[in-house]
Amino acid sequence: MNKMRLFTPGPTSVPEEVLLEMAKPVFHHRTQQYKDLFAKVNELLKYTYQTKNPVLTISGSGTAGAEMAMINVIPQGDKGNVLFLSNGKFAERWVKIGERNKWNSTVLKAEYGTAVPPEQVAEALKQKHYDAVVLVHSETSACTVTDLQAIAALTRDTDTILISDGITAVGALPVKTDEWGVDMVITGSQKAMMLPPGLAFISVSEKAQKKAAVVKQPNLYLDLNSYLKSYNANDVPWTPAVTLVRGLFVALTMVQQEGIEHVWKRTSICAAATRAAANALGLGVFSKSPSDSVTGINYPAGFTDKEFRTALRKQLNMNVAAGQGTMEGKIFRVSHMGYMDQVDTLGVIHGLEIILRQQGYKFEFGAGVAAAHKELAKLQEA
Amino acid sequence: MNKMRLFTPGPTSVPEEVLLEMAKPVFHHRTQQYKDLFAKVNELLKYTYQTKNPVLTISGSGTAGAEMAMINVIPQGDKGNVLFLSNGKFAERWVKIGERNKWNSTVLKAEYGTAVPPEQVAEALKQKHYDAVVLVHSETSACTVTDLQAIAALTRDTDTILISDGITAVGALPVKTDEWGVDMVITGSQKAMMLPPGLAFISVSEKAQKKAAVVKQPNLYLDLNSYLKSYNANDVPWTPAVTLVRGLFVALTMVQQEGIEHVWKRTSICAAATRAAANALGLGVFSKSPSDSVTGINYPAGFTDKEFRTALRKQLNMNVAAGQGTMEGKIFRVSHMGYMDQVDTLGVIHGLEIILRQQGYKFEFGAGVAAAHKELAKLQEA
Repeated sequence: MNKMRLFTPGPTSVPEEVLLEMAKPVFHHRTQQYKDLFAKVNELLKYTYQTKNPVLTISGSGTAGAEMAMINVIPQGDKGNVLFLSNGKFAERWVKIGERNKWNSTVLKAEYGTAVPPEQVAEALKQKHYDAVVLVHSETSACTVTDLQAIAALTRDTDTILISDGITAVGALPVKTDEWGVDMVITGSQKAMMLPPGLAFISVSEKAQKKAAVVKQPNLYLDLNSYLKSYNANDVPWTPAVTLVRGLFVALTMVQQEGIEHVWKRTSICAAATRAAANALGLGVFSKSPSDSVTGINYPAGFTDKEFRTALRKQLNMNVAAGQGTMEGKIFRVSHMGYMDQVDTLGVIHGLEIILRQQGYKFEFGAGVAAAHKELAKLQEA
Repeated sequence: MNKMRLFTPGPTSVPEEVLLEMAKPVFHHRTQQYKDLFAKVNELLKYTYQTKNPVLTISGSGTAGAEMAMINVIPQGDKGNVLFLSNGKFAERWVKIGERNKWNSTVLKAEYGTAVPPEQVAEALKQKHYDAVVLVHSETSACTVTDLQAIAALTRDTDTILISDGITAVGALPVKTDEWGVDMVITGSQKAMMLPPGLAFISVSEKAQKKAAVVKQPNLYLDLNSYLKSYNANDVPWTPAVTLVRGLFVALTMVQQEGIEHVWKRTSICAAATRAAANALGLGVFSKSPSDSVTGINYPAGFTDKEFRTALRKQLNMNVAAGQGTMEGKIFRVSHMGYMDQVDTLGVIHGLEIILRQQGYKFEFGAGVAAAHKELAKLQEA
């Protein structure tokens, strides 16, 4: 008997309280009961996002959320000027949305495992006027964090809309939406929000609301103005995924009870412990700008990704993720987001050591667990 | 103690077996486990739709499904020629999608409570070439059915794509997708599919697949070609709402075990019983072409919708729906879709009689229940 443990960077484990809430009988969404629930959820979303602005809830994946944010504030076709920061698979997907919409896109590229420096963004913003800057706060594919706060400082007093893909950031890394001045922050339900997949969220600053009011775009389902109009009446334009919204209320109440600063700290200490273990085992961490939501660990020479992850899953019921794109086979990824505590983190290091040794890697058995144990203890000391 | 009963035409009641399946721990969707589940679900969807073609699953509402169907097979802007059949609120929403996309739209209108006759569609198709015909098979707002089979006979041997909003039709009314030759049939999870809201489905004929391969449209999330490509590998392009897909497997297994023909028959007899009761009570049925998925019943003169429905809910825990648009206050609506049996149907007639009498309507108490009882018994006789 080994309990199933998800260390994948989405989906993540869902608390039993949330699963059971979602198993309750369905009620109708065009009722006061739903409006009351939605009003409470919306306050909790504002807290989680650290914003006073609306945070919209969309039935769909994070991709739906990112596309909705972009198409509603960027003028159509070659009238839209967009600066994309690209350092991984998800950023590349957003660039593709730019291509499909025929926007005038400029792409600042950084190697996987590095972030575009804020200075480079500042320089680009001097060269040309952009309707929007699109970046990925925590690039899940490359386990890399970009300095959102520094980039927000460049756009906040301009009419450029800053769109942050916060899909593996919100509820994991510090995201101070209003204090930093980020216009639109997107996230998805199956990451640090402790829910199954099916919902996306977007915060919308006043600046972004004004821009959306004048930009014309054809899509109805992802029409931001319809969502905003309904939002002000604690309502939604299209039928919402009611069970997930109920679960969201329970999950975000847990976030509120723990306190968002402690959630950030817990995630950060679990990440630090995993990095300390990776270093103690002589493997090292992939990224030069590691995100605290997911850690990329280098494989020892000669290891086969599929064999390693299969053994970990079959023997210990632990799920870690493969590398993506150019990093496939070179790294594996361990998530620290959401419903994840110090014991889970210690546990995955224990499991990794067992399979590493079994598959022939030479190292001091226990060095990883000792390093993680030492880091994790800091959570109680603080 | 009165159990909560949903007679609203979406959301409908979700079987306990489905709710509990969805409460199981979440697993990762990029796994063989998910592919195996999805392969089984896809076979069950084909059975429910009576098609050999792919039925795509989208995380989103029915509106997302309808928009996805249209934008992927209708050429952009004034190159797209569309014939809309409009006889209710949902048809009007699809016409709005036409306006947003600047298509050359022709709208054949019928009064709420009536359907556009196939002869009128035949005439329109003679006058002009259309890329697509868009109709609502069961118009939920007006409780009205359109003759899908007869209209499909007009388009099946042409290059015009027939798009049927089957949101309150699939799994309720007979829908013989392939036999009738309907190119795209859309439905949503929270109607006859016995699930909470959050998923939409679209069947795609070979003709529609060929059209989608040449039509260019900017939306990425709703890109039909990406879904088709993934579908052929039992996969999805974007993160799916895994819990709902698991529930879907259980719900559609129930449909398969009952047999789709019996599901249609059960729904049809529950509808016939409700109409018989409405007539026996002297109220009458709103539509001249009543849909078997939802019945619109006329209010007695002087009745207030809110007062009536509130009393029914507070005293008997039964939820029926208000009229929409021009029918608000004039009718209420009773659903027969999905997880609904003869006892539920008899029960709502019992409840309606109690509140009708209480609020001063004069009629022979018991006439509705007697009429419904007689009709419902036919389900056992056949």
